[in-house]
Amino acid sequence: MLGRTYDDQVCSIARALEVLGERWTLLVVRDAMLGVRRFEDFQASLGVARNVLTERLRRLVEAGVLRREPYQERPQRFEYRLTRMGIELAVPIIALMHWGDEHLPVPGGPPRLIQHRGCGGAVEAELVCQQCGLSIEPFRAAAVPGPGLVGDQERIPARAGAHPE
Amino acid sequence: MLGRTYDDQVCSIARALEVLGERWTLLVVRDAMLGVRRFEDFQASLGVARNVLTERLRRLVEAGVLRREPYQERPQRFEYRLTRMGIELAVPIIALMHWGDEHLPVPGGPPRLIQHRGCGGAVEAELVCQQCGLSIEPFRAAAVPGPGLVGDQERIPARAGAHPE
Repeated sequence: MLGRTYDDQVCSIARALEVLGERWTLLVVRDAMLGVRRFEDFQASLGVARNVLTERLRRLVEAGVLRREPYQERPQRFEYRLTRMGIELAVPIIALMHWGDEHLPVPGGPPRLIQHRGCGGAVEAELVCQQCGLSIEPFRAAAVPGPGLVGDQERIPARAGAHPE
Repeated sequence: MLGRTYDDQVCSIARALEVLGERWTLLVVRDAMLGVRRFEDFQASLGVARNVLTERLRRLVEAGVLRREPYQERPQRFEYRLTRMGIELAVPIIALMHWGDEHLPVPGGPPRLIQHRGCGGAVEAELVCQQCGLSIEPFRAAAVPGPGLVGDQERIPARAGAHPE
């Protein structure tokens, strides 16, 4: 089922999911953001089978999200570091984390907080209008066709963030 | 492989992925944000097998992301609408879309643009400090242990957003 690709989907979310759409893959990126770099540490953190982890790491390197770097010569060993592309996943990952904190809470409160390194304030992912500068609620955001939209994807009405009724 | 759950992971991302971690599931939510409500329309948009779609919709209703509402009596038919919980997925989904636009571009530019309904400006997902109000780069955001963190998850160092080196 997961072998199916989204080549016919002209959608940046679908393409992003091609890279990240397997659940462990996103948790590997989460761990990398928390400072994990070595195979054994990813494995201990995730409790995932070694062959699955090997495949996920290979795929993230191939996609440009992680880079593989030697840290020891004899025997040669490698660690995995986030590229710029990988670091920029912090925005969707933090947004997803806060969505989970709010809608799927655990007793005791959020397991992780995100702090601004500058002032120590709490960091949230928000939708910000680049024209008027306002932080906006999801229902104030509308999806409209962009220059890269082609073919029958256009038949989907552009009504992102419609109010619940 | 995907049958594995993350019950031992005290992490809001892992819990969110329990609801959303299958790729088609997130594309169902995307379509719902674009105004799709009926089974046939989801099916036509996604090109996914009907039994897979049935299962994904059922799961999203059970999780509280979609609600199932009758729109016709004889025969009775249902449509699927985003709940408040579902609408709030707009932040991670828009963040993921823009990550895809930037790092996995298609010829012609972004297929979809997000506009502020108020002024028509472009909407971006950003990390915003709730204390000083600054919009910050991912490497300026640090993950620190929160009140709900327990057990050996603490051994992961809190260094989210480390610079590429």
